[in-house]
Amino acid sequence: MPHFRTNLSVDHKGGGEFDPVTVADRDAEAAIREILSNTHPGHGIVGEEFGETEPDAEFCWIIDPIDGTRGFIMGQPLWGTLIGLTVDGAPMLGMMNQPYTGERFWSGETESFFTRGGDTRTIRVRPCPTLDKAILASTAPELFDTADFERFDALTRAVRMRRFGGDCYNYCLLAMGQIDLVVESGLKSFDIMPLVPIIERAGGVVTTWEGGDPSRGGRIVAAGDRTLHAAAMKILRT
Amino acid sequence: MPHFRTNLSVDHKGGGEFDPVTVADRDAEAAIREILSNTHPGHGIVGEEFGETEPDAEFCWIIDPIDGTRGFIMGQPLWGTLIGLTVDGAPMLGMMNQPYTGERFWSGETESFFTRGGDTRTIRVRPCPTLDKAILASTAPELFDTADFERFDALTRAVRMRRFGGDCYNYCLLAMGQIDLVVESGLKSFDIMPLVPIIERAGGVVTTWEGGDPSRGGRIVAAGDRTLHAAAMKILRT
Repeated sequence: MPHFRTNLSVDHKGGGEFDPVTVADRDAEAAIREILSNTHPGHGIVGEEFGETEPDAEFCWIIDPIDGTRGFIMGQPLWGTLIGLTVDGAPMLGMMNQPYTGERFWSGETESFFTRGGDTRTIRVRPCPTLDKAILASTAPELFDTADFERFDALTRAVRMRRFGGDCYNYCLLAMGQIDLVVESGLKSFDIMPLVPIIERAGGVVTTWEGGDPSRGGRIVAAGDRTLHAAAMKILRT
Repeated sequence: MPHFRTNLSVDHKGGGEFDPVTVADRDAEAAIREILSNTHPGHGIVGEEFGETEPDAEFCWIIDPIDGTRGFIMGQPLWGTLIGLTVDGAPMLGMMNQPYTGERFWSGETESFFTRGGDTRTIRVRPCPTLDKAILASTAPELFDTADFERFDALTRAVRMRRFGGDCYNYCLLAMGQIDLVVESGLKSFDIMPLVPIIERAGGVVTTWEGGDPSRGGRIVAAGDRTLHAAAMKILRT
């Protein structure tokens, strides 16, 4: 937060596409890693900026210090700090924290929760079994390669409304019953693993486009309604 | 705000494209109109939902109760209530209010301001004279017709980063020095007029793609830096 909406310098991670990283990403991850390694020695830690420490440990923390660095750089408050916990590789707990709006979305063992201003309440997905009533969100068209964008675009034509922008925030709004579908491509494990328990324990479904385990990233489809998820997959897999 | 993130019903305004309106749009505009007509009898009022009342009056209030209804419906906090004042048709004062985040962007006579949590500070655009360093924001690709999207896309290829999503919030981030360019099409007067004084008094430039008066809407290009505005116009007018 000390770096949000300041005149911070933006580094380019390298590669052909602009892939920004800031001191805010690095400082946040360093702070989180320090706390976790002190309080939970022996646990693994996998983070976006500083790599893997004992990733095969029974308990492993997955950290994306700022999911949505582009939004952060622009001053939009839709980015979030993601922290997940896996047990033997399976997603166990997840959290998304948005410090500017003061919002936290997180999973307990059997439910998901939303906390703001000291108040905590259970969140649930909403029913929406058919595509023609669905609101679809996705971070950016640039996520998709040409073939994947064609499938995504076909899905777009079947839904009521499509909206770009949002990163992790969209998955949380889905868990909260505000959005029906989130479809993306090219995600990394730390982009999605911490969100999986939040979505699932709010009653939603999240998989790869092929219906597989989403926690390793890749092409992701999340839905609040199981029937809608199947309908979306049918188009995405065509 | 009483309707934000509730299970509100969404009406379709009619026409081929999904054009949502909610009870929140209507109630907010009715409340604003009632206050203005009581405190400023004889002034004109032009609003998105309830049309024109004495639009040729010397002083005329321009109201968009929820700019970014799609974002509102999804639960994203990037929508805003826009209120502008024209004198003999020229933009005089403007305000964008985001009640969920508690943010207000507004123009005084010679400066623009940002208020949150009781603190008010002056805001200024940032220098960014060249396209290759610029961050470009736009609400959605659906705003553009095919020919306009080609020009927009050409501009996209010249900038450092493009981002969809945001509505009025993007223009305010530009006035605050976080974004360098906002380019859109198909705007109505009430979508842009209340933002014009905020942008201009923060040091920015906002015109149509042809360089004309932006306050009637249409194809809009806003820039924080005058040199950047000229460079963007050159591509958009090709």
